[in-house]
Amino acid sequence: MRDAVVLLSGGLDSYTAAAIAKTEGFALNALTIFYGQRHAREVEAARAVAKALGVARHQELTVDLRGIGGSALTSDIAVPKTGVVAADIPVTYVPARNTIFLSLALGWAEVLGAFDIFIGVNALDYSGYPDCRPEFIHAFESLANLATRAGVEGARFRVHTPLISMSKADIVKAGVELDLDYGLTHSCYDPPTDGRPCGRCDSCVLRARGFAQAGVADPLLR
Amino acid sequence: MRDAVVLLSGGLDSYTAAAIAKTEGFALNALTIFYGQRHAREVEAARAVAKALGVARHQELTVDLRGIGGSALTSDIAVPKTGVVAADIPVTYVPARNTIFLSLALGWAEVLGAFDIFIGVNALDYSGYPDCRPEFIHAFESLANLATRAGVEGARFRVHTPLISMSKADIVKAGVELDLDYGLTHSCYDPPTDGRPCGRCDSCVLRARGFAQAGVADPLLR
Repeated sequence: MRDAVVLLSGGLDSYTAAAIAKTEGFALNALTIFYGQRHAREVEAARAVAKALGVARHQELTVDLRGIGGSALTSDIAVPKTGVVAADIPVTYVPARNTIFLSLALGWAEVLGAFDIFIGVNALDYSGYPDCRPEFIHAFESLANLATRAGVEGARFRVHTPLISMSKADIVKAGVELDLDYGLTHSCYDPPTDGRPCGRCDSCVLRARGFAQAGVADPLLR
Repeated sequence: MRDAVVLLSGGLDSYTAAAIAKTEGFALNALTIFYGQRHAREVEAARAVAKALGVARHQELTVDLRGIGGSALTSDIAVPKTGVVAADIPVTYVPARNTIFLSLALGWAEVLGAFDIFIGVNALDYSGYPDCRPEFIHAFESLANLATRAGVEGARFRVHTPLISMSKADIVKAGVELDLDYGLTHSCYDPPTDGRPCGRCDSCVLRARGFAQAGVADPLLR
């Protein structure tokens, strides 16, 4: 089995992307990056999802982006809870987040001798983040081949984005078909103290819309 | 004054690159990234250098790459102390290090509204690291413009590499002309417990060669 590094946040998208990697025959090396968000619930979700996937390795890394700030997810800016998703890039955008995540995944891939990286980005229901677009992913692949010892020696890295053209409803349907337990996941940007989803942040709204359009009940809301 | 983010390790190269940024009229926002190396001496050097440069801001970030390993600088692999620099990529190569560093610099630049990043990479006396080459730097600039909100809105990021074509001797000469105090810096990959340079790792050998060829005494060795 070939090794792949899969970025695993404990959310619905990365769980589904990792499960697809598994069906494609990859041994999963799950990388969870904690970047200073309110995170006890996310640690728990990432570990539960990694266990459910039967990963070969699970590596947790902490990169405290609170020093950099600039996002509702890494600073004191409030997470908007309007119940609708705005058209422009929202304050939950974390500057250069996927570039940072893919760089760390690339470093680990090179150590493992792996050339395949999976990331659950989505260019449709994606909250308007620039680093979820196909042109960004292609630019990162080019960079990876120049950045690494393996690339210099002729290896070709591939960044797999199995969800990139899927709607949230398609993702939910794919996960249900793969028998994934979405009750293990965590999506809310800013859960109340009881740990339940807030239901009104972008991430909750996109998730709810996906389950509704797929005609599936969200097990987190049972 | 325009803001620039400068990657500042506390070594000779990044100190010189930051000083050049200052002569070009940039306000310096120094970013020091600790990545799990034996680091008390490096923290001290980075802070001393930042102070000497009169930076506008100094941000320290910790990214513990020991979980990823794969390098003599982040794992239990011994640092070679042969007293000569090998022709191939050495075990001190940290997988994807400059990609990770530039990604973090990009994130902070975007928060600051800065579009200029300085990094002290060097393609001549560079220990054979793939992520010190001009083609890598250009690929990162392309990526930065696709990865960010500012890039989407038309900004163009520039990664400045003022040392890229300089020999270590040229760098030392430039620094002496700028009146830099290289006694504040730290280069050794694996200093003995007394904190003095080992004199035989790649970094010490390249530094000694640079000072010798520049005809300057290294203040660290006085």
